[in-house]
Amino acid sequence: MKLSRLLRLRGIFYTKKDKRLAASIKHMAGSKPFNLALYKLAIKHASVSDEYVNGLKISNERLEYLGDAVLGAVIAEFLFIKFPYRDEGFLTETRSRMVNREALNQIAIKIGLAKLISESYEGRNLNAHKSIFGDSLEALIGAIYLDRGYKFCKKFILKRIVIHYDVDEIINTTTNFKSKIIEWAQKENKEVEFKMVSMTGNQRFKEFLVEIWIENESTASGKGNTKKKAEQEASKNACEKLAIQI
Amino acid sequence: MKLSRLLRLRGIFYTKKDKRLAASIKHMAGSKPFNLALYKLAIKHASVSDEYVNGLKISNERLEYLGDAVLGAVIAEFLFIKFPYRDEGFLTETRSRMVNREALNQIAIKIGLAKLISESYEGRNLNAHKSIFGDSLEALIGAIYLDRGYKFCKKFILKRIVIHYDVDEIINTTTNFKSKIIEWAQKENKEVEFKMVSMTGNQRFKEFLVEIWIENESTASGKGNTKKKAEQEASKNACEKLAIQI
Repeated sequence: MKLSRLLRLRGIFYTKKDKRLAASIKHMAGSKPFNLALYKLAIKHASVSDEYVNGLKISNERLEYLGDAVLGAVIAEFLFIKFPYRDEGFLTETRSRMVNREALNQIAIKIGLAKLISESYEGRNLNAHKSIFGDSLEALIGAIYLDRGYKFCKKFILKRIVIHYDVDEIINTTTNFKSKIIEWAQKENKEVEFKMVSMTGNQRFKEFLVEIWIENESTASGKGNTKKKAEQEASKNACEKLAIQI
Repeated sequence: MKLSRLLRLRGIFYTKKDKRLAASIKHMAGSKPFNLALYKLAIKHASVSDEYVNGLKISNERLEYLGDAVLGAVIAEFLFIKFPYRDEGFLTETRSRMVNREALNQIAIKIGLAKLISESYEGRNLNAHKSIFGDSLEALIGAIYLDRGYKFCKKFILKRIVIHYDVDEIINTTTNFKSKIIEWAQKENKEVEFKMVSMTGNQRFKEFLVEIWIENESTASGKGNTKKKAEQEASKNACEKLAIQI
């Protein structure tokens, strides 16, 4: 019998609660867990734990530390391959945006991890710890890594986590197109001007329209709900039009 | 024929210089490289490169970014397993000491990478960039990861890099034993005192001897070439004697 099958045999000793957890993990990770204890630990936040072993509080914090490192490596490779002509400054910045607490919180909600945690700790107030879901997502990654190895964990991250990112959106906010245009203009010795053409809408929904004039000629325009975003959008369009390397 | 053998066949097209590089890599990584181009790139520091492709300077910086992430994950797991009862704060701090630039520089020298780089760029002044060897070690890790996969790369890190660390020494400097003793004394409501017993030696080689007195009883002592180190050593001995959890 294959080892993986043997390991799954543990399932016959599961309690009803264990079975539900194993099913949830299977939904999230795409395969039944081998060592369920790791996943139980992964959803145990320090704020809801009061067990101590050898002076160490039993919580998911160690798994979170491990998961954070594995996630970092997988995302690093993902961006390395996706952007063969971008420098390491861009890659580092984009990665840090992808693994920030808020982004991970959102993904934990999307994949159902937040619901699983809320259910396990009903009656306790989890809202006091806003990062609890993102932390637990990292801990889940740590648990999957220990349970199933790097290859499986990498697949989990790429197929079930990265898929929720709008990478283009992240990059658009990572790249400062306006400074690219200004840099380019200085190098090429051209005069560049950002003109706000119009501002429409009411107090709540504003729309700005900005044009970029290069050497007294309108080159590109952009819209946005703030002046900054409109300038960014216009700069991006100008970069494309002028084929400026970003 | 196995794929790995086939890939090694590339060797018949190597120039003399390539052959020497491949032999050096084999010495360092324990196995011949499959894709030598990756390793050539890994030892190309930005300061000695002047090629550009698509606006990107061809250098080892991207590989360094990738290697840094992979090294972080492997060291994270190494410490996670080595210290099952230490919290994530300790693990994070110890890891950051292990992957700092100075530590990596030293290891690059020990494994012969520094020599390889110096030879490749003879005539150029590398001393201006002190971190060049540590950077290149990370880039080498990135190259090995891409060339041979995670498992091989992890083995390389554990067998050929981690082996050069004195982990106990790192931990001794990570753990602040003095504050552990003071914390413990406050909790146990005991009076603790650090007494400098003697200072011997001359201007250049000093030795301090410090004793820890708990409730007016000498409990432990420690030596060191600074007062702080002696206190640290004495505190460590006291922690051991009193079986204080660290």
